[in-house]
Amino acid sequence: MASNVLPRPVQRLINEFARLPGVGPKTAARLAFYLLRAADEQSLALAEALQELKAQTQLCSVCFNITEADPCPICADDGRNASLLCVVEEPLDVVAIERSRAYNGRYHVLHGAISPVEGIGPDDLKIAELLSRLERGGFDEVIIATNATLEGDSTALYLQRRLASLNLKLTRLARGLPVGGDLEYTDEITLGRALEGRQELH
Amino acid sequence: MASNVLPRPVQRLINEFARLPGVGPKTAARLAFYLLRAADEQSLALAEALQELKAQTQLCSVCFNITEADPCPICADDGRNASLLCVVEEPLDVVAIERSRAYNGRYHVLHGAISPVEGIGPDDLKIAELLSRLERGGFDEVIIATNATLEGDSTALYLQRRLASLNLKLTRLARGLPVGGDLEYTDEITLGRALEGRQELH
Repeated sequence: MASNVLPRPVQRLINEFARLPGVGPKTAARLAFYLLRAADEQSLALAEALQELKAQTQLCSVCFNITEADPCPICADDGRNASLLCVVEEPLDVVAIERSRAYNGRYHVLHGAISPVEGIGPDDLKIAELLSRLERGGFDEVIIATNATLEGDSTALYLQRRLASLNLKLTRLARGLPVGGDLEYTDEITLGRALEGRQELH
Repeated sequence: MASNVLPRPVQRLINEFARLPGVGPKTAARLAFYLLRAADEQSLALAEALQELKAQTQLCSVCFNITEADPCPICADDGRNASLLCVVEEPLDVVAIERSRAYNGRYHVLHGAISPVEGIGPDDLKIAELLSRLERGGFDEVIIATNATLEGDSTALYLQRRLASLNLKLTRLARGLPVGGDLEYTDEITLGRALEGRQELH
């Protein structure tokens, strides 16, 4: 966009939209001009939601999922199976598994996966926290529910080695997941099947 | 997204993103979780840009383009040809024409096009303002630069009739092959227009 023609506040919003992943300059301009024509309320509601995103959320000190209250509703729910732990990469993976209605245990969110290419090692993830959580006891089974990607598989392999010495049943999601697919985008039935068919690691 | 699992501030931001055109619930969730992981600064900069979008912009009282100062820089520029007026549908069309560096006159932004399907009539556009602007005199030529769409053509035809009684040269943008376009892949209507509007070589 020719920045000398657009008013600075419009250009500034276009620039900010264009910083978002998957949003190019043309999409950013389209969004900005849509908001210019829309009611003031819409821009302000989006602005407020953005301001409250970080202000009103935190990581659960138990499972590291994103939450308003600490501990999060899932960790605080006595009705769930406290001996079953599902280890996932991202908070959205918790949403996907909950949507499958095939799981009633607890979670642990790693906040990423091991990726030498991106320079992400085990210390960048919530793995130390996972180990100390498991060492405190109470869990019978750990389901490693990382993505079916190279990074997810590396992370699973790493966790398998680190958790081998603990007296725990280790499982992975069944290979019902389409290979190369993101857990976040998997439909609930496939995800449910993958949970039911989970395989024990030896 | 399962709203019972996501913290309310996250769900709220997803909902607000999903109100934007072309942003579905999955893209909205991806953007929200991207911002959750990004530095606070990015969410807050976007929020501020949104708040200032309407607060710091207005419509130019002369040409109705979006502007910080009234009149806008183009209307205030004495170096431009004040006898030439280009009528466009949207502010982004001004940006596109300025980028071509082929035009040095003034603009008039209609803020839409006539569309019976969407219930947009002449009274919803800045057409009365265009007429009184032209009646004040000073213009020799009006270029009707509406889109090459059904709505753009209807609007052009309507303007042509309304402006016929004024002693002005009325022109429209040429129809033809896009520069760099393959004849083989050009649709038959565009090709027909390109043939009708063929130019004699000297």
